[in-house]
Amino acid sequence: MASFTRRIPEGDNRERSVCAECGYVAYENPKVVVGSVVAADGRILMCRRAIEPRKGFWTLPAGYLELGETLEEGAAREAMEEAEAAIAIDGILGVFSIARIGQVQVIFRARFAAAGPPSFAPGPESEDVQLFAWDEIPWRDIAFPSVRWALDAWRSAETGGLGRPAGNPADDPRGVHRMSPSMADGPMADGKEETAL
Amino acid sequence: MASFTRRIPEGDNRERSVCAECGYVAYENPKVVVGSVVAADGRILMCRRAIEPRKGFWTLPAGYLELGETLEEGAAREAMEEAEAAIAIDGILGVFSIARIGQVQVIFRARFAAAGPPSFAPGPESEDVQLFAWDEIPWRDIAFPSVRWALDAWRSAETGGLGRPAGNPADDPRGVHRMSPSMADGPMADGKEETAL
Repeated sequence: MASFTRRIPEGDNRERSVCAECGYVAYENPKVVVGSVVAADGRILMCRRAIEPRKGFWTLPAGYLELGETLEEGAAREAMEEAEAAIAIDGILGVFSIARIGQVQVIFRARFAAAGPPSFAPGPESEDVQLFAWDEIPWRDIAFPSVRWALDAWRSAETGGLGRPAGNPADDPRGVHRMSPSMADGPMADGKEETAL
Repeated sequence: MASFTRRIPEGDNRERSVCAECGYVAYENPKVVVGSVVAADGRILMCRRAIEPRKGFWTLPAGYLELGETLEEGAAREAMEEAEAAIAIDGILGVFSIARIGQVQVIFRARFAAAGPPSFAPGPESEDVQLFAWDEIPWRDIAFPSVRWALDAWRSAETGGLGRPAGNPADDPRGVHRMSPSMADGPMADGKEETAL
């Protein structure tokens, strides 16, 4: 396997990982996660993760954008892969920076593409997929803080047009906090502020 | 140097570049470009590129987001590196997908952080930096289509609050067109539609 050392490549101004064997410079750039809050009659599509990290916890259909995709195409692909849901995208709900792990997340508001009863099922990376009313969301078993940020953004925009996208919340402007027990209580559950961790 | 072959790594579902010498999997994900439309008294800060691609053409201060940065921090760093400008960020003007080259661009609206006369100068990657009134923008010498998309978004939002971010324009929803001569005419110059290329 590759054995990397840290040094500044010629013509660069930052230390990068360079393979000691072959000289390959592994530019480690932030990755883009695309996802969506897919709603039908006020209920939100969520997936219980079948894989680590946070196996068994609930998330939104989301994942890494691939080369050659637009943001919208990536979000639609993830909804199909993780929830077997064909979706129609409305617009951007939130744009989040998770600096701790080098992620940028772009989360869309979406609906099921077809009329009639919503069609969905667990994909290979999901143990379960369900539609939850707001009060039924398993707040204590949310996979990642940004899932809650996206749900909050959806709630704020629920009935109206989409405006300025939500950014990171005021208590985590750089996206550096891990999920903490108090963060899992849900914003509407008890009104408590998240504590930093 | 690394010698890459294309194959599907174990546990993946897509072909990736794998180094034939050391086995390193080079996941090639889309990269995030962050930038800003920095305005002072209705004039916009633009940089003439000192490097390829598009050396000698005009662009906005923008560049690749680095690991550990938020989007806002990256946009502020680029404004400092390319235009020696300390900026204060207002909000997101546009979120663009450039599928042809695997880029996602997040462009902010910003102003100069300090009161008083705007302070700026060419950084190492700029031949020149200037503030242009809308009618003075060198439309025929714009570096990239998305520079114009961002300028158009700024113009639309100029006097009001920021709303829903602009996405790709209707004639290039996937970001696949290169700059064409007719695209350089400027949206306000003659009202012509861009032609696909």
